[in-house]
Amino acid sequence: MTTTVAALSVPEAGKPFETVDLERRDLKPNDVRIKIRYAGICHSDIHQARDEWGGGIFPMTPGHEIIGTVEETGSDVTAHAVGDTVGVGCFVDSCLDCDACRDGEEQFCSRGVVQTYSAKDYDGAITYGGYSEQVVVRDHFAVKIPDGVDLAATTPLLCAGITTYAPLVRHGVTEGTRVGVIGMGGLGHVAVKIAAALGADVTVLSRTDAKKDDGLEFGAKAYVATEEKGALRKLRGSFDVILNTVGAAVPLDQYLGLLDRGGRMVNLGAPTESLEMGAFSLLSFRRALEGSMVGGLPQTQEMLDFCAEHGITATVEVIDADQVGEYYDKVVDGKVRYRAVIDVASIAR
Amino acid sequence: MTTTVAALSVPEAGKPFETVDLERRDLKPNDVRIKIRYAGICHSDIHQARDEWGGGIFPMTPGHEIIGTVEETGSDVTAHAVGDTVGVGCFVDSCLDCDACRDGEEQFCSRGVVQTYSAKDYDGAITYGGYSEQVVVRDHFAVKIPDGVDLAATTPLLCAGITTYAPLVRHGVTEGTRVGVIGMGGLGHVAVKIAAALGADVTVLSRTDAKKDDGLEFGAKAYVATEEKGALRKLRGSFDVILNTVGAAVPLDQYLGLLDRGGRMVNLGAPTESLEMGAFSLLSFRRALEGSMVGGLPQTQEMLDFCAEHGITATVEVIDADQVGEYYDKVVDGKVRYRAVIDVASIAR
Repeated sequence: MTTTVAALSVPEAGKPFETVDLERRDLKPNDVRIKIRYAGICHSDIHQARDEWGGGIFPMTPGHEIIGTVEETGSDVTAHAVGDTVGVGCFVDSCLDCDACRDGEEQFCSRGVVQTYSAKDYDGAITYGGYSEQVVVRDHFAVKIPDGVDLAATTPLLCAGITTYAPLVRHGVTEGTRVGVIGMGGLGHVAVKIAAALGADVTVLSRTDAKKDDGLEFGAKAYVATEEKGALRKLRGSFDVILNTVGAAVPLDQYLGLLDRGGRMVNLGAPTESLEMGAFSLLSFRRALEGSMVGGLPQTQEMLDFCAEHGITATVEVIDADQVGEYYDKVVDGKVRYRAVIDVASIAR
Repeated sequence: MTTTVAALSVPEAGKPFETVDLERRDLKPNDVRIKIRYAGICHSDIHQARDEWGGGIFPMTPGHEIIGTVEETGSDVTAHAVGDTVGVGCFVDSCLDCDACRDGEEQFCSRGVVQTYSAKDYDGAITYGGYSEQVVVRDHFAVKIPDGVDLAATTPLLCAGITTYAPLVRHGVTEGTRVGVIGMGGLGHVAVKIAAALGADVTVLSRTDAKKDDGLEFGAKAYVATEEKGALRKLRGSFDVILNTVGAAVPLDQYLGLLDRGGRMVNLGAPTESLEMGAFSLLSFRRALEGSMVGGLPQTQEMLDFCAEHGITATVEVIDADQVGEYYDKVVDGKVRYRAVIDVASIAR
């Protein structure tokens, strides 16, 4: 017997959301049932609901930034208890036995990590995400939400937080590291906050001055409107690490030129266009362009604890279920400040 | 008063070599005069003699793989003595005062490193390279050639050796590291030897089987003819480090797919075409594409000592001055096994 819950669903690629009945499975011994409180809207939800990357499974219920309350636990679950506030991020199962899983990088599981939605679980069932009243996941894939945090504003950290925290920590960002953040949207504004909390000298690289006050308030030391003539030229060779949080193609040669010797640009977005650059943009100063994709469960917990300790949340707009379509357009237009979070209680109304 | 020496020279981009008189400066207090014995032919000599990268200064005397004997030393020189066997690589001066220089990465000098040829020295003089009887360089830019090595075969290490040694060491290549080497030409065959000496499990990725016996003899554990159908597919996710030594564009997405989690492809060549890849080729397994350009003087000395200790030289064809034009075509056609070295004594004949 399954449990029927209300969910938002896209029947076909690019079609509007509908409220539908969704079946959530009965608990296996290692499962937890989570009553969802909030679900964040990530730009990648939009790419997938519109099938811009291809391979989407429809009907689709997106949502991989999830916070809720444990309602029921399987017989073998010891890590979580009924009433706990927990989070679920981008995936809901992995083999937990391969090198990547044992290293806490479940996202690179050799069996293939099971994405939170629009994916096939190991038993063949299709996964449906957080824009719904409940989700049932294997206990390992639920993380603890620290006490006392703003739940709605913490929700986006499950993707935007770990996606930016992981490369910053991996590259040893610390006191005085010169970090550039390209784009100050959902990912970028969290990147600024986390990098600043790590002690970095953060510069926001945003097209216009429109978000300058916010950027400085989030902890950036400098804010550069990249559309201003000559703005980038002045910054040549001045960063140790650049996070590119923009989902569309950016002029990589120009941005790579901003890296100092041995500098790394980490590409977090997934534009449909190819990445393209001249060989000398990398050869000069032995620069590197790296891809980075979320992070594993242990580091997600570490990031949540770090953010709670430093008072970091996303800056969010909490919206109702009937606003999701409108907010998809706003996200694409860069008009959300800075992450939209669905109050899931509004789905059933 | 300057010293007139015979040299090979390209009068204009792409024109044949001529033997000309070249003036070498009188010694400044920190200079050494080197009687050149051998000069290697690097693929980048050809790019520059044909002005394929633009900005070439003509007439041009190429050559940045140089071994010779110290003939005269300036009054302040203590590191080298008359009669010493020394080498000169890709550059002949730098500020020696900036962060990069102090870190021993003179190639990234903030004042701009002075290339061994086709460059302007800090005093405005044009530099001319190793295809000549003599060169005069600042003492810091001459390295010691260890006793007992084969001089002709050691000459290419001044560029091909350090170019491949630096990224292998930087990425911690050691016992058991899985290293792929794309292309087994002048750079590639040295990369195989050095990586094998570092203890790596080396796989050669070459278009055809033509160099298989050589590759295995150089120390590779495996050799894959990449033109064979499905050959690359079998290698997906199986390397920690890949050195791309090919000077032309290669299908980056395919090769990036061969990297395991956290793997790095280091691009050593400088194709005139853009580097192009899909975002997911990097996002998956958080792979990186890095550029690397030779190495500094301290590491060049370390590399020469390492190679001497491990009996590593390039595998060379020693040629006369009148064969250089013909060998340029052979290098481009991939027909030299594996590096051509000019016996400089033949220039004056």
